[in-house]
Amino acid sequence: RWVMMGLIGFSVGIVGFLLHQLIDLISDTKWFYATQYLQDSLAIAWVFAVGYSLIFLIPAAAIVVWLRPSAGGSGIPELIGFLNGTIIRHIFNIRTMVVKFISCVFAVGSGMPVGPEGPMIHLGGLIGAGLSQFKSDSFGIRPTYFQRFRNSEDRRNFISAGAAAGVSSAFGAPVGGLLFSMEEVSSFWNMKLSWQTFFCCMISTFTTDLFNSAFNGFTYTGSFGLFATETNIMFQVDTDLATNILAFIPSAILGCIGGILGALFTFLNVKIARLRRRLLSKIKSQQNQKVVRFLEPCIIMILTATVSVLLPAGFTCTNAPRTEPDVERYVCPVGLSFIDGNKTLNNQSYNEAATLLFVTGEQAIKHLFSNGTHRQFQVGVLITVLVIYYVLACWAAGTSISSGLVVPMLFIGALYGRIVGQLMVTWFGIHPPETDPYYAWMDPGAMALIGAASFFGGVSRLTMSLTVIMVEITNDISFLLPMMSTIMISKWVGDYFTHPLYHSLLEFKCIPFLDSEPVVLNLELYCAGDAMTKNTVVVHPVEKVGRLCKLLLSTTHGGFPVIKDTSQGPVLCGLITRLELCMLLQHNEIFVDSPDGSTAGQALHYQTVGKETYKRIENIFKHETEREQYLDLSPYYNQSCVSLPETFSLHRTYIIFRTLGLRHLPVVDDHNHVVGIITRKDLMGFKLEETLHTKLTENSSDV
Amino acid sequence: RWVMMGLIGFSVGIVGFLLHQLIDLISDTKWFYATQYLQDSLAIAWVFAVGYSLIFLIPAAAIVVWLRPSAGGSGIPELIGFLNGTIIRHIFNIRTMVVKFISCVFAVGSGMPVGPEGPMIHLGGLIGAGLSQFKSDSFGIRPTYFQRFRNSEDRRNFISAGAAAGVSSAFGAPVGGLLFSMEEVSSFWNMKLSWQTFFCCMISTFTTDLFNSAFNGFTYTGSFGLFATETNIMFQVDTDLATNILAFIPSAILGCIGGILGALFTFLNVKIARLRRRLLSKIKSQQNQKVVRFLEPCIIMILTATVSVLLPAGFTCTNAPRTEPDVERYVCPVGLSFIDGNKTLNNQSYNEAATLLFVTGEQAIKHLFSNGTHRQFQVGVLITVLVIYYVLACWAAGTSISSGLVVPMLFIGALYGRIVGQLMVTWFGIHPPETDPYYAWMDPGAMALIGAASFFGGVSRLTMSLTVIMVEITNDISFLLPMMSTIMISKWVGDYFTHPLYHSLLEFKCIPFLDSEPVVLNLELYCAGDAMTKNTVVVHPVEKVGRLCKLLLSTTHGGFPVIKDTSQGPVLCGLITRLELCMLLQHNEIFVDSPDGSTAGQALHYQTVGKETYKRIENIFKHETEREQYLDLSPYYNQSCVSLPETFSLHRTYIIFRTLGLRHLPVVDDHNHVVGIITRKDLMGFKLEETLHTKLTENSSDV
Repeated sequence: RWVMMGLIGFSVGIVGFLLHQLIDLISDTKWFYATQYLQDSLAIAWVFAVGYSLIFLIPAAAIVVWLRPSAGGSGIPELIGFLNGTIIRHIFNIRTMVVKFISCVFAVGSGMPVGPEGPMIHLGGLIGAGLSQFKSDSFGIRPTYFQRFRNSEDRRNFISAGAAAGVSSAFGAPVGGLLFSMEEVSSFWNMKLSWQTFFCCMISTFTTDLFNSAFNGFTYTGSFGLFATETNIMFQVDTDLATNILAFIPSAILGCIGGILGALFTFLNVKIARLRRRLLSKIKSQQNQKVVRFLEPCIIMILTATVSVLLPAGFTCTNAPRTEPDVERYVCPVGLSFIDGNKTLNNQSYNEAATLLFVTGEQAIKHLFSNGTHRQFQVGVLITVLVIYYVLACWAAGTSISSGLVVPMLFIGALYGRIVGQLMVTWFGIHPPETDPYYAWMDPGAMALIGAASFFGGVSRLTMSLTVIMVEITNDISFLLPMMSTIMISKWVGDYFTHPLYHSLLEFKCIPFLDSEPVVLNLELYCAGDAMTKNTVVVHPVEKVGRLCKLLLSTTHGGFPVIKDTSQGPVLCGLITRLELCMLLQHNEIFVDSPDGSTAGQALHYQTVGKETYKRIENIFKHETEREQYLDLSPYYNQSCVSLPETFSLHRTYIIFRTLGLRHLPVVDDHNHVVGIITRKDLMGFKLEETLHTKLTENSSDV
Repeated sequence: RWVMMGLIGFSVGIVGFLLHQLIDLISDTKWFYATQYLQDSLAIAWVFAVGYSLIFLIPAAAIVVWLRPSAGGSGIPELIGFLNGTIIRHIFNIRTMVVKFISCVFAVGSGMPVGPEGPMIHLGGLIGAGLSQFKSDSFGIRPTYFQRFRNSEDRRNFISAGAAAGVSSAFGAPVGGLLFSMEEVSSFWNMKLSWQTFFCCMISTFTTDLFNSAFNGFTYTGSFGLFATETNIMFQVDTDLATNILAFIPSAILGCIGGILGALFTFLNVKIARLRRRLLSKIKSQQNQKVVRFLEPCIIMILTATVSVLLPAGFTCTNAPRTEPDVERYVCPVGLSFIDGNKTLNNQSYNEAATLLFVTGEQAIKHLFSNGTHRQFQVGVLITVLVIYYVLACWAAGTSISSGLVVPMLFIGALYGRIVGQLMVTWFGIHPPETDPYYAWMDPGAMALIGAASFFGGVSRLTMSLTVIMVEITNDISFLLPMMSTIMISKWVGDYFTHPLYHSLLEFKCIPFLDSEPVVLNLELYCAGDAMTKNTVVVHPVEKVGRLCKLLLSTTHGGFPVIKDTSQGPVLCGLITRLELCMLLQHNEIFVDSPDGSTAGQALHYQTVGKETYKRIENIFKHETEREQYLDLSPYYNQSCVSLPETFSLHRTYIIFRTLGLRHLPVVDDHNHVVGIITRKDLMGFKLEETLHTKLTENSSDV
């Protein structure tokens, strides 16, 4: 198991490395040539930027739309839903993985306002699932060695670990990855899993760092294995600043802004997704729908490329000699490069907007985070970029490409954080740490960092994992407390307005997700009997094959309580799932002719599992003799099935259902007779409300 | 609830601040005068050190021994046990808190080889319990406003939060505190609690930092609210070093050492505790026992003080001009201070052993962690100190003072880490980061850091919370990966030998602790019926008062299943606890004369709870008329009681018991007749093994 965890970590690390390097390669090439063409003419640069981006974006969008639509988006809501206990088709499939990887590389590399982190998390989960199961229906391989991991609990654990490794690899944040998986992705967790995941994350980060340290855009740079802090840590903050108690005031303000903008972002995101679905549903032809879905990211791409090339031209170059020496790579666009004799370094000019837009998102964030650069950006530029980027990122997030939201979130947050910081500089002046340590925290770079944390918090509503990730990607622990408070406040403010983004998306995608606490209040006043579905279909331990087939074909229930006839009426003795029944029906050698005939000795081995297929069942159903035979279920059904009495408090029912991760919960009366069954859907918020409302009105009409 | 969390955080922060400052004050005074007396004569210094230490140690030990023995030790095992569901007397009591605080301040301040962190965690839990309940039997106050928090779930949550805040305050590590509470202390956790705790930790760290920033040994130093990194972060690592892949080799070695030494530490600790108990049990008189318990820490103290004063004199002063400028406060003891004209700074001499022993533990750790000081300590000195300190720390850990183990653990780990680092310097030479960045990681300071992590990991077997705490107390994220790997390895090695320290102590203290996974293997082969206690005492919904009293007085069961007679025999319908029965019996106004007499209308309000007292019950039992009356339990018993069928898999039973945090679990047969009950003790490892063994032999004799 540890080896498996290590292997998952290693593979995720390698994938993370490849992803990172490929994206770097593509985008570096783009900006390098774009800069060169800019010297000649703005138009050529524009044509190049748009053309180059489209070349990469077209395949990225095309493969998602035509090959595997489920690979679109970040995949995180699907992952959360799956780990909560819902089965979602196609999400753990090798084709999904390939499509996702390619689409993500091309989309992020082309310069869309999206990040590679979300897909990386999904890829991690995919690898976790794929490696541990090591079977593929597409390939038809199924070695027996991995049999032991092929149960739903281990599968879930490996997927959680894989997702955590994905975060670790994407951010270089092993502890953050672990916490992310624990806080957001997984619904079930135990401590044993947590340190296996810890190990997995460690290996994953290690692998990514190891290779990244030696290669840069696939060029070998020597010093293999030396983890320089620059490559190791995403947004290294160079100058440590001491925090002041006064820093909590802007933190609180940024927290509020983060909460509001984050809630707005979530709201817009879901709105746009709804609008998109409505528009698409109006298009009749399936093929046309796909074309529209494919064109959407292309339009965004053209807009983005246009903005990033043309917008800087709208702002004049800042010619002032820069006093901050640590940022040196400016992109002064329209040939205004002032090289003043031998004083090149201190007297270059740069375009503020271009520094933000004419680079990759990560570089822009690095610029925004840099400390001690009090005058680098003007408020006007920042606001313009913020508005444009906010809209584009919001729009791009739901399109048919694999895309993550983290880089856009950090960028937006850093932008408004920097605006606040800049305003503070305007009002209170510059306080360099050497001369005025008491006010040194008033740095736009630090404010940008806090802003980024607040927006991330406002959108995702993570708390501790976010804090750890932010610390790990910036290597700046002195701002821990302001960062924590801003995250806290943005979460409060955000929760006041909307659900977290991923939960909103879960709802939008109609994935039944059960929170750890019930959404409907006052459940204590009801009992389990009120929420259950009555008229449960039950089976007997020895059942006619024909009846079973009919059951499977005519109902859609996932599980059937097994009842036993006794002298005092039928009592519940277990539960059998649809999947198990299907599998049993594939083997007609275990059918017997009479209800009390012996099963011919051999019980089926648990491992001989087949695919859930209905064709065979239909065949049996047609076959006259088989239909009249009997099937003894007793060795196969689950005797350890939790059941609850009718009078059980509904609140406690919910909690038991959720903590034990059940799918079906038979409800019995005092004498252990089955009176109903509670399933996941019965406990969903809206369903519960409906049922209880009906109940209430019934009761009142009775009186 | 948020306000309450904030309040807990604030109080814990204040307590942490007071603790910290008082300890600093006491120990600084001690070392200051000791240094002065040293210039005169070694003997006077020795007398002073021993005398001064004893003055403080005597009350520290005395109040624990005579006033509240439960305040001894770190209190963490008790906390873990309580949160796992066991009731332990006296641990959440205001007197325990006061005793603990005073004892901890004096013991740590006097220079015992113990740290303040363990008591701080317990104090945090105490404050969490005290503030949220806001009732005290010692004071007799019980405001109604806090009634809402007076249920066991909220109480548990507040205690968890308080413990987390304690860690945060002790280490200045808010995220680490949260994780510690989650990983080690709590047995039940949910995400809602986690961000309330997050908030609590934040406030606590903030409060401590805020006050610590302004005061130093209760002297106001100005700049209130400026969190300078030096005060904020315990063991600030100044020089960032890049890690190399080769650094994983010494990390692995240190991990092994840490695992072995950690296991040995745990082993010795439990052995000494056993030995102590055996010796004490031989002493007849209670009073003499107490005297022995009181003298024990005094002997350790005298030994420690002697060693710390006299041992440095055994080593010659290192007169070589120090090339490392960052450590300036040496204590060259026996007047050998070479002040060479105006070149005082570079030509001082210092005593290596004194640098480690003649200061507080925290300062010594800081010295050991310092980077770039390749030649500061010699291997011989380090080994001597290591051996002596190891033995003393091991011995002191179980004595009758409030003591934590964290500082000793870090110190020991740092010592052998430094030894390994020193050996590496001897073999491979010095590689300063400026000229040779590829090998710069080979620094004894960095190795000491990794060593500290490994020993901490080897003793406590924490993984992620330890990593986060280490990062937070050192502010050095670049060594994250080697640190993670060393912790991982030391945990593996340690688990191979012994249980984690806290779990060993739990076992030693006979606290029934249920791990989240069953200890006994192959539980799937048994069913719930095999582990249950048969001959369960049951009650009816309407029961004779006399019988209830007799039950309570004659049995020690904590809960009684309630059964209902039906036409098909008695069926289980709920559970009532001993506490509830006791409370009900205090109110004779609800007694009725005949089984079907009405309860005179008024049911008792849930809030009118009393103390569990048996005197009243005995009275009732004597009272003839009351004994013949009936009590209708139906409004009071818990109808939402989970029960399991006899044939339920024992493994699943364990998991359900543990995840739902049950205390009693009635076992029923097919017709819902009670056949037995499973309690916490039935599921303890040794008990289970015994029962199952008996079962097995029975079965085999049957055949």
